[in-house]
Amino acid sequence: MKRSVFTAEIEAAIQQVRADVAALHSELTRYGLIVWTGGNVSGRVPGADLFVIKPSGVSYDDLAPDNMILCDLDGTVIAGTAGSDRSPSSDTAAHAYVYRHMPEVGGVVHTHSTFAVAWAARNEEIPCVITAMADEFGGPIPVGPFAIIGDDSIGRGIVETLSGHRSRAVLMANHGPFTIGKDAKDAVKAAVMVEDVARTVHYAREAGPLVPIPQQAIDSLFDRYQNVYGQSGDARR
Amino acid sequence: MKRSVFTAEIEAAIQQVRADVAALHSELTRYGLIVWTGGNVSGRVPGADLFVIKPSGVSYDDLAPDNMILCDLDGTVIAGTAGSDRSPSSDTAAHAYVYRHMPEVGGVVHTHSTFAVAWAARNEEIPCVITAMADEFGGPIPVGPFAIIGDDSIGRGIVETLSGHRSRAVLMANHGPFTIGKDAKDAVKAAVMVEDVARTVHYAREAGPLVPIPQQAIDSLFDRYQNVYGQSGDARR
Amino acid sequence: MKRSVFTAEIEAAIQQVRADVAALHSELTRYGLIVWTGGNVSGRVPGADLFVIKPSGVSYDDLAPDNMILCDLDGTVIAGTAGSDRSPSSDTAAHAYVYRHMPEVGGVVHTHSTFAVAWAARNEEIPCVITAMADEFGGPIPVGPFAIIGDDSIGRGIVETLSGHRSRAVLMANHGPFTIGKDAKDAVKAAVMVEDVARTVHYAREAGPLVPIPQQAIDSLFDRYQNVYGQSGDARR
Amino acid sequence: MKRSVFTAEIEAAIQQVRADVAALHSELTRYGLIVWTGGNVSGRVPGADLFVIKPSGVSYDDLAPDNMILCDLDGTVIAGTAGSDRSPSSDTAAHAYVYRHMPEVGGVVHTHSTFAVAWAARNEEIPCVITAMADEFGGPIPVGPFAIIGDDSIGRGIVETLSGHRSRAVLMANHGPFTIGKDAKDAVKAAVMVEDVARTVHYAREAGPLVPIPQQAIDSLFDRYQNVYGQSGDARR
Repeated sequence: MKRSVFTAEIEAAIQQVRADVAALHSELTRYGLIVWTGGNVSGRVPGADLFVIKPSGVSYDDLAPDNMILCDLDGTVIAGTAGSDRSPSSDTAAHAYVYRHMPEVGGVVHTHSTFAVAWAARNEEIPCVITAMADEFGGPIPVGPFAIIGDDSIGRGIVETLSGHRSRAVLMANHGPFTIGKDAKDAVKAAVMVEDVARTVHYAREAGPLVPIPQQAIDSLFDRYQNVYGQSGDARR
Repeated sequence: MKRSVFTAEIEAAIQQVRADVAALHSELTRYGLIVWTGGNVSGRVPGADLFVIKPSGVSYDDLAPDNMILCDLDGTVIAGTAGSDRSPSSDTAAHAYVYRHMPEVGGVVHTHSTFAVAWAARNEEIPCVITAMADEFGGPIPVGPFAIIGDDSIGRGIVETLSGHRSRAVLMANHGPFTIGKDAKDAVKAAVMVEDVARTVHYAREAGPLVPIPQQAIDSLFDRYQNVYGQSGDARR
Repeated sequence: MKRSVFTAEIEAAIQQVRADVAALHSELTRYGLIVWTGGNVSGRVPGADLFVIKPSGVSYDDLAPDNMILCDLDGTVIAGTAGSDRSPSSDTAAHAYVYRHMPEVGGVVHTHSTFAVAWAARNEEIPCVITAMADEFGGPIPVGPFAIIGDDSIGRGIVETLSGHRSRAVLMANHGPFTIGKDAKDAVKAAVMVEDVARTVHYAREAGPLVPIPQQAIDSLFDRYQNVYGQSGDARR
Repeated sequence: MKRSVFTAEIEAAIQQVRADVAALHSELTRYGLIVWTGGNVSGRVPGADLFVIKPSGVSYDDLAPDNMILCDLDGTVIAGTAGSDRSPSSDTAAHAYVYRHMPEVGGVVHTHSTFAVAWAARNEEIPCVITAMADEFGGPIPVGPFAIIGDDSIGRGIVETLSGHRSRAVLMANHGPFTIGKDAKDAVKAAVMVEDVARTVHYAREAGPLVPIPQQAIDSLFDRYQNVYGQSGDARR
């Protein structure tokens, strides 16, 4: 292993994000959001134009900090760093696009979780009829455009749909959910919650008409949850 | 740690309830009733105007007796006790309201379990068409009013709906189930059972007309289960 | 512990059935057939008018051979034997009735598994449209009468419905599945399979018309499976 | 144990396939594709006219390399080899037929996974409306003929349906999915993915009209995934 080209501070931040991103994948399996090697989590390195992402097609049993892959914001693997002999997730270009265009975003997650994909296969947004959804997403979960994997079109669709939107989740048409957050953990939480509301609202609507929540109540719930919930300094956890 | 302001007997009761409440949260994950940090269990301290509740927004992997939070019946955290440096569950006011107004209640549980929330999103009570539901709840599971989180309105809705009702569970409109019990374990059992019947009756009705149970049979099943089932001295366990 | 009133051979058989019945309850939790303390398994003691059954209302985490309860074929607990200080399952009368009237039955299981109960809440038999169901049950799963818990009426309903029927499972109306088998393990397998087919056929029918299997093919599948499948001497395992 | 009749190279290959096939069964339980002893995995021995398959009716807890069964391409157990005192899976004839007629196939899997069987009970192919399905299967999952278990008719149905088809999975009518792959792991992945898409598309269609994916996009997704995804030299993992 060569000497690091990064400052000690950046190197420490990279190690932390590697550890977080590797560990957070277990939340995707815990909540049944992925099968086989599907799904991916990435996290921005604070203070640097870098992010850490899962390698492509590697078993969830084999994920460890040192096989996570370090990329610049164009999605190019940083040669000579741990894991750089492997290919990064095939969704790397989409993650990179989001980091380049949404500086407030510190984490991105993609899954093919069942119920979120089911709404995506109908290109249908999820209506906000439960308070947990108002808390977490502040309204409906929007649908993004149909986009081909592998170039910038997925990233562009995510950024165009979520910029200025309360929701941290988008259902890419016929594809599945992408979520963003202030860091990787926050984006993983959004991935867990979007499947939870997708499932609940699916079953709710199958059995009869939904009762809407008044917009004012949605606004009030969203405001409270973003500012009050959780331990101080740790809102939305 | 300061010297306890409580008698040795109350102090021992507090320790017991802390241990019970912390441990009972694992039943919520075992039965898939919650995701992330959602859901909360509380238990009244026998012989004192106190209850113990989960901290807000803390991972289920990190719950232990000493980070449970001790409150008085106004929902105020008892300063200087274990866990009192954290914020209690954002539903603490609702739990406190129930303990103040229903002296027979020794435990309160709240979850966002999928099928119970699905009925709540339609503001629809669950009809009593299976014997397990007659046993446990003595009839339909009622719906409570739509109420904003954070003040007394949820607590009031629970108390108004469940006072004099056989059911230990209420579906708060567009929100989710709250359950009560003679102690925390009994309320947790009600939370497990309400999701079980919400799910079963959902699937039953999706596929065709339900066959009602005669009211007399419901009464007889409820009476037997409350008085005979289980080991003696341990009814409804 | 007093000296056993049984011959050494019967005593050994009792110990074996205690161990089997205690262990088999874990299959009910493995396949999600029960919640809390619901469900029960019993096994006949070969060579004696006795059977072993789960105690009432005891946690699945606490089941062990020595707290299983030994009963005669009237459902009376055998005083002075291990576990006899506890109450047997509240379904003991139904199990006893089956053992008295169906001498070929060596095991009985009862659960409230979700999809089997859903069919029961509509008093609707499960049609035989998948080969695994033809293999295991030889045709549709029948519905038994509505019966009150606690006397012989459930046992009578099981016996009347299953006598001379290929199916080892009956859906008691508005209640749930009871299964029988040549021993406790065989009845547990039937409980696992009846939920599996109840779930599969539920989803199949929700989405469009089912394609029936010709009766001749059902007969042929049932015959082969009962006589050929599995290791020799161990058919239907 | 007699001396091996195989060359050291073939013997080593057999040991490797025994280990792989035994271990891969745990993926079937991990993803809930099977209950009890249902389902089976087999793998061709590279460089020999042999394959390794699960014994019939043995618990998934008891599977080990040495009780896997070695067969020739007629499905005849190779006498005197480890496990040869047991009966092979009752689907052995079907597996053998596939290996004889599709030389490019190195693994075969059969399950009764819930949603795939639900489509099979309607004899209905799964339409390709999600990108993950285009990636993995290149189009719809086809239905094969109704066939009786135990002779060549299942094997013939698999081969006729899948020869020249992009899909590695077929839904045998009223029966369930069979999948093929370049080796046992690849066929297991197909079994996991076919249930995943069967479930997702089921829920998607239950709630409203599906939006189709243009054929050109399906072709492009399939081509990319087969050639680019995963680590180099390990496509489709």
